[in-house]
Amino acid sequence: MKAPITSLSNPTIKNLVKLRQHRERAKQGMLLIDGARALRVALRNDFPVSAVYFSQAATDKQADLLRNVQDAGGNLQPVTPAVFRKISYAEHPDGLLGVAPCPYATLADLPTTNKPLYLVVERLEKPGNLGAILRSADAAGATALVLCDGRTDLWNPNVIRASQGACFAVPVAVATAEGALLWLHHGAVQIIAAAPLAPRSYYEIDLRLPSALVLGAEQDGLTSVWRDETRVCIPMAGQLDSLNVAQTASILLFEAVRQRVNSAPGRPAT
Amino acid sequence: MKAPITSLSNPTIKNLVKLRQHRERAKQGMLLIDGARALRVALRNDFPVSAVYFSQAATDKQADLLRNVQDAGGNLQPVTPAVFRKISYAEHPDGLLGVAPCPYATLADLPTTNKPLYLVVERLEKPGNLGAILRSADAAGATALVLCDGRTDLWNPNVIRASQGACFAVPVAVATAEGALLWLHHGAVQIIAAAPLAPRSYYEIDLRLPSALVLGAEQDGLTSVWRDETRVCIPMAGQLDSLNVAQTASILLFEAVRQRVNSAPGRPAT
Repeated sequence: MKAPITSLSNPTIKNLVKLRQHRERAKQGMLLIDGARALRVALRNDFPVSAVYFSQAATDKQADLLRNVQDAGGNLQPVTPAVFRKISYAEHPDGLLGVAPCPYATLADLPTTNKPLYLVVERLEKPGNLGAILRSADAAGATALVLCDGRTDLWNPNVIRASQGACFAVPVAVATAEGALLWLHHGAVQIIAAAPLAPRSYYEIDLRLPSALVLGAEQDGLTSVWRDETRVCIPMAGQLDSLNVAQTASILLFEAVRQRVNSAPGRPAT
Repeated sequence: MKAPITSLSNPTIKNLVKLRQHRERAKQGMLLIDGARALRVALRNDFPVSAVYFSQAATDKQADLLRNVQDAGGNLQPVTPAVFRKISYAEHPDGLLGVAPCPYATLADLPTTNKPLYLVVERLEKPGNLGAILRSADAAGATALVLCDGRTDLWNPNVIRASQGACFAVPVAVATAEGALLWLHHGAVQIIAAAPLAPRSYYEIDLRLPSALVLGAEQDGLTSVWRDETRVCIPMAGQLDSLNVAQTASILLFEAVRQRVNSAPGRPAT
């Protein structure tokens, strides 16, 4: 076992704090994974964890996790509790912080499947929303998420935290909206764009077909790239005029799940 | 027009900051409404706004809102920009902060309707989740929300903010779980409790009937009060084992909306 890092001004420690910034992640090509829950999802999905920094508190409880990291070729580096408090950004730090290379997959990297269910999000701004959407995409068994013209980085620590690690479970491609549109058309995937003022409700669409659900930005909605595609609304009965984008994603994704369960292709949805 | 309050140590100003704390709200029976959006929803629902503190920036843009407050008998009190920065807790303060009495309705105060759709939440902890749930309840046209054994105060400023004012649009009763159960039984309302391990999926239930959707706490789920009620799950296809409680609420509420739209009672849901 290595000796623990004890100094708050250790250059490695200072660098871990820097990696919270997008600029530094882009420059170094590394990301942070804070906490056992997200680390376990990353490891289960063969995400190459380069190193885990851990405080004594985590050693016993997370011995199997630390062993897995080591078996996969990752470094284990103990740190003092004070050093861990400095490097962790979690609300309730559990004594484990991983570092891994930052992959940005493209559309060509996404898994192909017979009856895909893609979620496409355009120009999202809030890391918490992207994280929540990833969690819903995982729960619904979506084929992949396509992040178009993201104004929040996929590997923002708050995305990873809010997703509870679902960012490592759901395949994610980074693309332009134009590129995503062409790719979906080429793959004969029906495009269903969520627009508050659309005349059709989302549940009128047969989502058992290969489908991509497209969601726009929190404030501005969809760009004109999607103007010729099928638009659907979530019918609103209340006084407020919009739903949060993460709630919208959940509602659309689970309508697709409902239609697809117990319903062979070609049979009407019940 | 009154003279603006200029002093950060003005006792009224100091008291407005105190009202962010639950203890002070309980003692004084007053709550804060930060920002024009929430204030407009409150006024539209005849919520008795006692006073609005505003900075010059808001005067022109929100002249109609200020007039409405005054017409309804509320006081208007200008403050300097520095004072406003002190009293606002909003992420993007817009120069308006209202104060109003804190009502806590009971089950007996809730509107009665033919085919109610209640949402019951038990022991919720996070203000952001309660706010998001209120927003979804408004969007879905839920009859009312029942807040059981709340570990977060309905009038927490973060609930009001996250709900975007939906807390003033949706009728909310505060109750014990036992009280809510008795009340629902008495009203012949079917109780559908969300439990991750339930064998039935939520969409197998006829939600066109008078229904109450019951959700448990973020970590612990439902208490045993609901043990004899119908339990449903949201089928999970992914690697993570649970959905956020606000996502769950949206999925269940909008399944009820889907079933109820274009579907007369007695006809099978399509």
